[in-house]
Amino acid sequence: MEKNLKKVVSMDNIKLSGDEREVIIIDQTKLPGKLEYIGLSLPEHFYDAIKRLAVRGAPAIGICAAYGMYVCGKGIMVKQRLLDTEDAAFDSGKKAKFLAEFEKLGAYINSSRPTAVNLSHMVDRMVACARNALENENIVSKDFVNILKNEAVSIHKEDMEMCARIAEYGLSLVKNGDGILTHCNAGPLATSRYGTALGPILLGKERGMEFHVFADETRPLLQGARLTSFELSSAGVDVTLICDNMASIVMKSGKVQACFVGCDRVAANGDTANKIGTSGVAILAKYYGIPFYVLGPSSSIDMNCPSGESIVIEERQPDEIKNMFFKTPSAPEDVKCYNPSFDVTDNALIAGIVTEKGIVRPPFKENLAALFSNN
Amino acid sequence: MEKNLKKVVSMDNIKLSGDEREVIIIDQTKLPGKLEYIGLSLPEHFYDAIKRLAVRGAPAIGICAAYGMYVCGKGIMVKQRLLDTEDAAFDSGKKAKFLAEFEKLGAYINSSRPTAVNLSHMVDRMVACARNALENENIVSKDFVNILKNEAVSIHKEDMEMCARIAEYGLSLVKNGDGILTHCNAGPLATSRYGTALGPILLGKERGMEFHVFADETRPLLQGARLTSFELSSAGVDVTLICDNMASIVMKSGKVQACFVGCDRVAANGDTANKIGTSGVAILAKYYGIPFYVLGPSSSIDMNCPSGESIVIEERQPDEIKNMFFKTPSAPEDVKCYNPSFDVTDNALIAGIVTEKGIVRPPFKENLAALFSNN
Repeated sequence: MEKNLKKVVSMDNIKLSGDEREVIIIDQTKLPGKLEYIGLSLPEHFYDAIKRLAVRGAPAIGICAAYGMYVCGKGIMVKQRLLDTEDAAFDSGKKAKFLAEFEKLGAYINSSRPTAVNLSHMVDRMVACARNALENENIVSKDFVNILKNEAVSIHKEDMEMCARIAEYGLSLVKNGDGILTHCNAGPLATSRYGTALGPILLGKERGMEFHVFADETRPLLQGARLTSFELSSAGVDVTLICDNMASIVMKSGKVQACFVGCDRVAANGDTANKIGTSGVAILAKYYGIPFYVLGPSSSIDMNCPSGESIVIEERQPDEIKNMFFKTPSAPEDVKCYNPSFDVTDNALIAGIVTEKGIVRPPFKENLAALFSNN
Repeated sequence: MEKNLKKVVSMDNIKLSGDEREVIIIDQTKLPGKLEYIGLSLPEHFYDAIKRLAVRGAPAIGICAAYGMYVCGKGIMVKQRLLDTEDAAFDSGKKAKFLAEFEKLGAYINSSRPTAVNLSHMVDRMVACARNALENENIVSKDFVNILKNEAVSIHKEDMEMCARIAEYGLSLVKNGDGILTHCNAGPLATSRYGTALGPILLGKERGMEFHVFADETRPLLQGARLTSFELSSAGVDVTLICDNMASIVMKSGKVQACFVGCDRVAANGDTANKIGTSGVAILAKYYGIPFYVLGPSSSIDMNCPSGESIVIEERQPDEIKNMFFKTPSAPEDVKCYNPSFDVTDNALIAGIVTEKGIVRPPFKENLAALFSNN
């Protein structure tokens, strides 16, 4: 495999096609066997790509959905003949008709993954941007299209900047030569550029530091094996792949100085929903006295969600456990499976939450509130 | 799938063929897709079946090897023309010649899995039985053959009785309706009849009790998915298959009242080596306040081994993690893997060790010593 740190850090996992009629993404379900790009242009393409995890990771989903709202928004405009004359102003009837359709589009794309709060944020932001732009009486189609595009591009750029800042803060928590255990995938593929949980590792590597990373394979969908070990080894980082149930023996060996994981949603008290198995890693880390850090954008922190108890956990198909990746079914056909996508890590197990605004330490309820009030 | 408790509890996973020229075993590598019996008659068959895990679980390996020593021992007698006249006494030259060949057979079968202490115990016992029988000056071939057979049958019967007693003691630790989490496979396939960790569940089921069992799939070799969920669902027990990293969310849900696991080796201080991931389950159980029990024969307790630190952990091939069961490799070809077979659970995490002699509670150092001195 070619080792190229620069290529990994600046991985173009989501981009607009040259004619801006498609969003080109890396189909993450094909990794690590194939680096395959696919084009999304219709609402169903975006719904399907998000649902079947061709694009995954809260920030990447948000970016993809934002570009999707732009591309499909233009599609609505074509259908409603708003682009027949680019310099024509909309009348209020046309504006309302467009907005209704655009909101429907947003609700549809948003329904592809109900737990992903970032998805609904970015969809809402695109809708709000459209509504706001249409409040300008003299807005013309061409300018409106540009406003939508710029909003999507801003969302993408903000994510890149945010990842770089998270990487920088996270890097302050480890030193050269440290062992770091990570679960699932919160790297460049899940976000943009550096990623969140893998950001400090890749940024450190850029600066000549060496870390020894243990990557949980992360059953059932094996994101750790397929994506994290792919990204890190492609970047030339020393990575060792383990099964999820080997985290205990690795931590016991003294080879792990910190755990870095991403997050799907953080409650106001610091309870953190992330990929299934994360809470187990945190409990083991606590037992072995290893600091456990959550890395993610402050937009993952939901101050309206008082604690992990309010977070509804998405359940997925038994087939992912018994059948999806295996040569032959791994269990009898009629055996029941329980397949939760996420679990919630108790705030008491978390040493710090690393955001683009800084590192939040316990007590989280107070310090998370302060993080937001300081802005 | 046919539900038949009686068939599972009395599962004939290892038996002599009618003509006693073969040992018939269930090829466990074919489960759960196929319930396939294979016949072993030559030394290479036994070596191969043990090595490639067609028969697995320390007690089952011991039983299979003991029958193998009987069947192949008869083969040596045929070759050495000791069975031409069944009532003839051996002269001392013939006895020495037989014993030399029988010991070679034992060493060969024993070399199929060097870490399995039970295998060498049972092979040694068959050799000692032969040597002892041949000390009788007037022994005749027919009687000698019977003595070998009876020793193998005794080994098998002792295991059945031991499992039944472990099941009985284990059953006293749970009540009707309880949720039980188990890791790997310590059921009838790994032993004889009830099994060890699954014994209380199957015995309870026989008595009309219902348990809700959560079976960890147990990566990388998936014994929980392939074998435990097969055995329990075949027996009509309510079993839910989960990925190893889902144990935390299941325990948190309050659906687990006890954890039952088997053991490969217990040190004199109670530290327990068992399938990789067991120590993680124990740490989670401790965190959630759920009692964690180890179930196994007292022969697994090694009073010469002071603590878990003296237990050497077997490492297996990376291919088991990346390739063995998967349609396509789950990780980039050149990614490093760490694949330990076992881990050691700290005695402080164990609520009780359930043996055929009773339940040993902490402090283990004192109470395990007492268990052996009381006999």
